[in-house]
Amino acid sequence: MLINNKSYRTIWFDKQSNNVKIIDQTKLPFNLKIVSLSNLNQVLMAINTMQVRGAPLIGATAAYGIYLAYRELKDKSKIDEAILKIKNTRPTAINLFWAVTRMLSKISKNKSKAVIEENLLREANKICEDDIKECKSIGKRGFKLIEEIHKKKGRVNILTHCNAGWLATIDWGTATAPIYYAKKNKLNIHVWVDETRPRNQGASLTSYELNHQEVNNTIITDNTAGILMQRGKIDLCIVGADRVIISGDVVNKIGTFLKALLAKEFNIPFYVAIPLSTIDFKTRRFEDVIIEERHSDELRKVTGLDKNKNLKQIDIYPVNSKVYNPAFDITPKKFITKLITNRGIINANKNAISRLRND
Amino acid sequence: MLINNKSYRTIWFDKQSNNVKIIDQTKLPFNLKIVSLSNLNQVLMAINTMQVRGAPLIGATAAYGIYLAYRELKDKSKIDEAILKIKNTRPTAINLFWAVTRMLSKISKNKSKAVIEENLLREANKICEDDIKECKSIGKRGFKLIEEIHKKKGRVNILTHCNAGWLATIDWGTATAPIYYAKKNKLNIHVWVDETRPRNQGASLTSYELNHQEVNNTIITDNTAGILMQRGKIDLCIVGADRVIISGDVVNKIGTFLKALLAKEFNIPFYVAIPLSTIDFKTRRFEDVIIEERHSDELRKVTGLDKNKNLKQIDIYPVNSKVYNPAFDITPKKFITKLITNRGIINANKNAISRLRND
Repeated sequence: MLINNKSYRTIWFDKQSNNVKIIDQTKLPFNLKIVSLSNLNQVLMAINTMQVRGAPLIGATAAYGIYLAYRELKDKSKIDEAILKIKNTRPTAINLFWAVTRMLSKISKNKSKAVIEENLLREANKICEDDIKECKSIGKRGFKLIEEIHKKKGRVNILTHCNAGWLATIDWGTATAPIYYAKKNKLNIHVWVDETRPRNQGASLTSYELNHQEVNNTIITDNTAGILMQRGKIDLCIVGADRVIISGDVVNKIGTFLKALLAKEFNIPFYVAIPLSTIDFKTRRFEDVIIEERHSDELRKVTGLDKNKNLKQIDIYPVNSKVYNPAFDITPKKFITKLITNRGIINANKNAISRLRND
Repeated sequence: MLINNKSYRTIWFDKQSNNVKIIDQTKLPFNLKIVSLSNLNQVLMAINTMQVRGAPLIGATAAYGIYLAYRELKDKSKIDEAILKIKNTRPTAINLFWAVTRMLSKISKNKSKAVIEENLLREANKICEDDIKECKSIGKRGFKLIEEIHKKKGRVNILTHCNAGWLATIDWGTATAPIYYAKKNKLNIHVWVDETRPRNQGASLTSYELNHQEVNNTIITDNTAGILMQRGKIDLCIVGADRVIISGDVVNKIGTFLKALLAKEFNIPFYVAIPLSTIDFKTRRFEDVIIEERHSDELRKVTGLDKNKNLKQIDIYPVNSKVYNPAFDITPKKFITKLITNRGIINANKNAISRLRND
């Protein structure tokens, strides 16, 4: 997708420098900064500090992380340690574990280290290419849902939460892919972008990327969708997910559940757009998903530009106040209209999801 | 209530300076700044810029505004113009209109200007004293609800949204009065404080005032209550209101509706604490309430302390992003467990509310 009319991906292997490159998303929307990752530690840091974030992108970064670790360590037992470190970065996004498993299958005892290294790079690249194909497939399928409403109303107002845009994937995005297809097809669309506290990924990333694709959008606080739905200003909701468990329950950015509850109250369709790699086929009860709790500074400190356009961090809370910061919540399946996957638009339940595994 | 162990009210008439004094709430939680209001323009500014806010406090400030306007203008026709200006400051909080009506009844043609001036000051003072009595009455009644849960569980987790604390009234608060009574009675309570974007009154005012009263509290984003309820971490919700219409529907800070919807889903009681002056006995349909829309800068710009402890304002959004900022939403009566009023705990419906008027 475009930033300042130039085409980017969120992560790529740069042959010239022989390193992995990423857009440092902690600097957005203020600076477009490209960062090099040349070893495991840099990858761990990039995931931990959320220079990269979004379930599919975390997966891809983890994949490159294993390649870089192997290139650096060239030893299976040290790689096991590296993998543990990668797995410990962020516990909720399932794509991370999926990518690690996929990469591990390429470390074969029967091959030379050079070949394994080459295969690992090829596999990480392929994970990226696959993700793009999957996002496009989600986009084409989700586009039809938008088009249907457009036929009736001549305009479609879409609500999204957090960033499940191209910046959360390699390109195109999950929740945004149908929106970009709608834009390509010149439908009259408008996106309500939840600011998404505490890290404001809605404002800083989703609105930013939609602006650069010239998609009409408006930032609102996370509190605002209620009155918008009451007034008929939202036609459908599309969000991404960090993990969809086999029961159909959805783990996504904190606050997603509140929007799904609202949508149900107003009979507004609520879609979750995911590639298959976001599905957790093992966990049966949502109570068993570990919900990552992050540092209180994510609420307490805010970064932005001062009047001289210098980047500043400020402290916005009373000094002695305690803060609690879980990063995700769980939307029970009964609030999900459908899952938009790269393999079809399906019900959020065990039967439909199991069928995907067996296909 | 206390700030740094010293007792304050939010507004008072200072005999020494012959002016009205307020706590400038736009400076909290960073600075405790007392501001003098000596004329109508200063009152209009204080209400518009939200140096004072909260429905009961807006009412009291408007009352002093009429006194100051009369003292300044001493002419009924000019006063009419002043009243129009006061009414135009903020359209949603009903207490403003109620206070204006109450003050106007004291401008009698048969009295001398000096006597009218004296009566207006006395009436504004009385509005404050009455508000305190009403808040205490709300506190005692609401306390019983907390006490009941405490008997069963030994600890009560309360969720509140925005600031309906003593800073929104003259003293004690509406939603916080039951909490302060629970604290006085040494119940084991903990308050989850919604940050309340865009102006963060939950963090900046509610958590601040609870800290100074040594009430155990934790700030969360507006997105967080869903997972807390899912995990059984919230026992009851208490919020205030800017207006309760005769049907029982509640107009309050944007986001209130989402919390009420959540509470209903989890069978958690959701109470709205109000003095009678917050009831709009005239408006029959919530669609007819004007929802104030405020400037986009309330979202876009954030104020806090930089690393040198200097107050700084920063810009947190992408430059070209549009913003929509309605200040309130509407919680339909079906989501309200009860209204805690100074005249009793009643159902949120027309019958029960009408009875209050007739009492």
